[in-house]
Amino acid sequence: MYLESIKGLDDLKKLNINQLKILCQEIRQFLLDTVLETGGHLASNLGIVELTVALHYVFDEQDKIIWDVGHQSYIHKILTGRKDELKTLRKNGGLSGFSNPKESNADAFLTGHASTSISAGLGMCEARDLQKKSYNVISVIGDGALTGGMAYEALNNIDKKNMLVILNDNDMSISKNVGGVSLSLSRLRLKNGYNKFKYFLTRFFSAIPLIGKFIVKFCRATKNFLKSLFGSNTFFSNFGVKYIGPFNGNDLKKLIKILASIKKELSRPILLHIVTQKGKGYKEAEQNPEKFHGIYGKDCQPKNYSYSKTFGKTLTELADNNDKICAVCAAMSNGTGLDCFAEKHKDRFFDVGIAEEHAVTFAAGLAKSGMKPFVAIYSTFLQRAYDQILHDVCIDNLPVVFCIDRAGFVGADGETHQGLFDLSFLTTIPNMTVIAPKDTNELKKALSFAAEYNAPLAIRYPKETDDMYQDTEFVPFAWEYIANCDSDISIFAVGGNMIKLAQNAALHYDKKINIINTRFVKPLDENILKARSKDKKWIVLEENQIYGGLGEKISLFASENNLNIDIKIIAVKDKFVKHASIEEQLYENGFNVENIISIIENKG
Amino acid sequence: MYLESIKGLDDLKKLNINQLKILCQEIRQFLLDTVLETGGHLASNLGIVELTVALHYVFDEQDKIIWDVGHQSYIHKILTGRKDELKTLRKNGGLSGFSNPKESNADAFLTGHASTSISAGLGMCEARDLQKKSYNVISVIGDGALTGGMAYEALNNIDKKNMLVILNDNDMSISKNVGGVSLSLSRLRLKNGYNKFKYFLTRFFSAIPLIGKFIVKFCRATKNFLKSLFGSNTFFSNFGVKYIGPFNGNDLKKLIKILASIKKELSRPILLHIVTQKGKGYKEAEQNPEKFHGIYGKDCQPKNYSYSKTFGKTLTELADNNDKICAVCAAMSNGTGLDCFAEKHKDRFFDVGIAEEHAVTFAAGLAKSGMKPFVAIYSTFLQRAYDQILHDVCIDNLPVVFCIDRAGFVGADGETHQGLFDLSFLTTIPNMTVIAPKDTNELKKALSFAAEYNAPLAIRYPKETDDMYQDTEFVPFAWEYIANCDSDISIFAVGGNMIKLAQNAALHYDKKINIINTRFVKPLDENILKARSKDKKWIVLEENQIYGGLGEKISLFASENNLNIDIKIIAVKDKFVKHASIEEQLYENGFNVENIISIIENKG
Repeated sequence: MYLESIKGLDDLKKLNINQLKILCQEIRQFLLDTVLETGGHLASNLGIVELTVALHYVFDEQDKIIWDVGHQSYIHKILTGRKDELKTLRKNGGLSGFSNPKESNADAFLTGHASTSISAGLGMCEARDLQKKSYNVISVIGDGALTGGMAYEALNNIDKKNMLVILNDNDMSISKNVGGVSLSLSRLRLKNGYNKFKYFLTRFFSAIPLIGKFIVKFCRATKNFLKSLFGSNTFFSNFGVKYIGPFNGNDLKKLIKILASIKKELSRPILLHIVTQKGKGYKEAEQNPEKFHGIYGKDCQPKNYSYSKTFGKTLTELADNNDKICAVCAAMSNGTGLDCFAEKHKDRFFDVGIAEEHAVTFAAGLAKSGMKPFVAIYSTFLQRAYDQILHDVCIDNLPVVFCIDRAGFVGADGETHQGLFDLSFLTTIPNMTVIAPKDTNELKKALSFAAEYNAPLAIRYPKETDDMYQDTEFVPFAWEYIANCDSDISIFAVGGNMIKLAQNAALHYDKKINIINTRFVKPLDENILKARSKDKKWIVLEENQIYGGLGEKISLFASENNLNIDIKIIAVKDKFVKHASIEEQLYENGFNVENIISIIENKG
Repeated sequence: MYLESIKGLDDLKKLNINQLKILCQEIRQFLLDTVLETGGHLASNLGIVELTVALHYVFDEQDKIIWDVGHQSYIHKILTGRKDELKTLRKNGGLSGFSNPKESNADAFLTGHASTSISAGLGMCEARDLQKKSYNVISVIGDGALTGGMAYEALNNIDKKNMLVILNDNDMSISKNVGGVSLSLSRLRLKNGYNKFKYFLTRFFSAIPLIGKFIVKFCRATKNFLKSLFGSNTFFSNFGVKYIGPFNGNDLKKLIKILASIKKELSRPILLHIVTQKGKGYKEAEQNPEKFHGIYGKDCQPKNYSYSKTFGKTLTELADNNDKICAVCAAMSNGTGLDCFAEKHKDRFFDVGIAEEHAVTFAAGLAKSGMKPFVAIYSTFLQRAYDQILHDVCIDNLPVVFCIDRAGFVGADGETHQGLFDLSFLTTIPNMTVIAPKDTNELKKALSFAAEYNAPLAIRYPKETDDMYQDTEFVPFAWEYIANCDSDISIFAVGGNMIKLAQNAALHYDKKINIINTRFVKPLDENILKARSKDKKWIVLEENQIYGGLGEKISLFASENNLNIDIKIIAVKDKFVKHASIEEQLYENGFNVENIISIIENKG
């Protein structure tokens, strides 16, 4: 076992190529054994074993490798001293599932969201040159992340910086890739044969004495002349980036050779295009990479009710009877539950790739011209489109519906992916209405309401739940009592998790408590608030940051109406929340019965 | 005067080419006469007279023209029935300085921020095709706006939609353009001669009987073959967009001819590249287009103290003695006051173009590698980078300083450009500290503090002010009393405008009032809040949306500490604020002495 001997990068450099090849096999097996147990991103890591080994073999510890998204950095973690901890992956107190400098200095930059690595890398290059340091900067970005606008903004600023961008091309985002650049890449992939032929020709002519080298030179000059006439030969040349590739990214020997030669000539921006196979070496994942993109751990199984599936199914049914309804997503047709919509209403389904900003303004264009778009984006990724929601949708009051999955705590993905900001950033926008349904039944009703509602609307919900509540009437803009008893203590709960918690607290408390489902987070249901204005205590429960959430709005309401009520808010107290199970995240952030009861009893 | 006769687009179509040319002259004169009086965006409109006339002459009323940014749509407004109202431009109740469908149906989409037009246009194309309608969709985008990532995301999704994108290339954003694509465009501009030569050759050979047409065909086939070998000939071909151009965009006759021929063959995405001269026809503006990008109206003169200039000057001085300090801006070196920094510290100055997302993550990369970046972006444009601030800067707690100009009411630019959201979206982010200095002296001190502070920090301020306060000590994280008297009424004021208002209210009120400069909006100064916990009334004044602002945080503090204080907040009440003077915007949103006094006297 070579893997056992790798305690740090120095150990790696001691191996020869054949030993490295065996190491790759060992890593692959170790990954499979571990990640099938822990859960996490499997397919993308299996595809990138050779690249990671080759990068660390060729480059040095001082060099900065930025893993775009970072979900493919497991092998990097293994090689940089975190092998034994990989079994703690994505667990409370264990390794993060993404790149995180707080975890190890070997992680050059914190990543999680897509398309940031070239921007960050460029900043590091400028810092290097200003400080007259000499490290190399390498951004590893997938072809999916390349569809994000900020990757383009960065390429457009790359100028003459010596920086290596490695395009890890597996022709996939999480779902199948989309877009013109993706087609350009396909054409480049076809050039692989052309590269081999060119290499052969050059060797052949060079071998001819005297005249041979002249022929090669002449051919090059002609090619360059024609290039200058007809423009550059790849998308990347527009940015002054030297394009190299495509090469087989699972061929270790070749990778090492290419990287070593690039390292020698790294005095300008270079893009190395490699083609890897997602799921490589694990047949199930090779055949179904989307399924093995992110997998559940052994001790973590799906819950009974899926909001995502309910959303997809309900929207598909609504669209059966309303030909204005469209669905827009950003590289997440499966994750958001829209697969069935895509199948049934192909012409009204739009997957724009990892491009949340475009997704939102595109939907605004649809709405402005008479369609009824539902934009399905995870809470954390919708942060990317804050300005588009505000500026392109809400100022003109356009009827775009935002269906926001993975709201609240998200568990194992951790601090880069928490859905703990959407209530804050959405409710500050005028004209926006925000709904948080209590269960999948209420989600259905909210979607039916949304289909008829003629202004911006957001519906936020978690991925899944085990809880189902009484099937009640959905009265637009009205909150509802889950428990209405003779009590001067009321709990205002946002979403199903919070209602369940309130119910548990009520069970454990010897006096009665009112529980209110605040399913419209904005606007407030002032009728209920006024009706409860004689209460002694209000407690607000919300899976969101405390600043900008419902609790603050209720505090404000109380101030404005001169209510003398003791208001306490259980929310995330202005901090980022790391990976753990959702249950642990809830408990550790004060979402537990003891905390509620101590608040009720004025001990909190 | 042909201009007088143009009441709508039908009247335009009655004119012949020579009459249209005269019309263009008349429009240019009318624009000059009007905009030098009202203020507004002059240079960009002068450059686009011929294009606007040609577009409306060739296309029809049902066709949708989306003006990216929209600051160049004055001629469009003139031609679509708003000529007589142009004198009300950017004034209270008058015409907006941008495209706004609420103002006229001729404005197909609301614009203000850059780079949205292709996304919106694509949405309209899909809506058209789904509804089997037949209008044309035309996005007019500047070469500056093309550096924004979402324009690229849209191009990447353009697929085979029949849509016309007009690239209005004046080689300028607001400042001089930057980036690789800009260089690509320069190369394309040089091809103008090549186009003419090609046209001549084709005509020449076609004129030769029999064999001539064969030669032309052969040449075309050869060219296409070479193209397919060496890739596509422009940046846009990567997206499957047919590129046409470049053409002189101030040549009316040629424009009409080209647009007419495009209109006939508009069955796929076409990009028409025209080169226009910013400021065309007004020598001062031609020679200094940046100065005439946006100009003051006659009755609106600069105020005494410029925050922007103070920022630029102070940062330049700080950088003299600290070689870690860098400045990053997004196409706004002049507007943000950074011109002097750019001159003095060229190697540490980075203008990334209209690319706010990249700007922020690039700065994060600088900070991660030991530099101290100050990112200068207007409040409204920083909305674009909400996710990058949160995800790339704040999770890893990197020492990036955000210098946020045009915070609060911005006056004539109106609802798309108000700086009324930054306190909300910034303070919800953990690890972020937010400062609002009361005057330019305090800005200087805040910047010195920022230079030494080792975590994310934002400083928000308006463009300029006439007010200067007593020069006091800047104690980090501490608020200060502007007036501390024997009173149980305290006003908490964010920034200079609010302090001035509080002082005016105090003058007009016969009893005493405490006034507190809440210069740190986050975190709260809990010492002062606790010290004032016996007060009867707190009034919070902030130029920001009420949701997510300081007032809510103070309400929350009072709730959490069981304080029985009557709290009232004067802020923007969850609505968008239209163009008017800043003074009018303040008054109409309750920032006036009467309102404060009526609140104090419990009448409000």
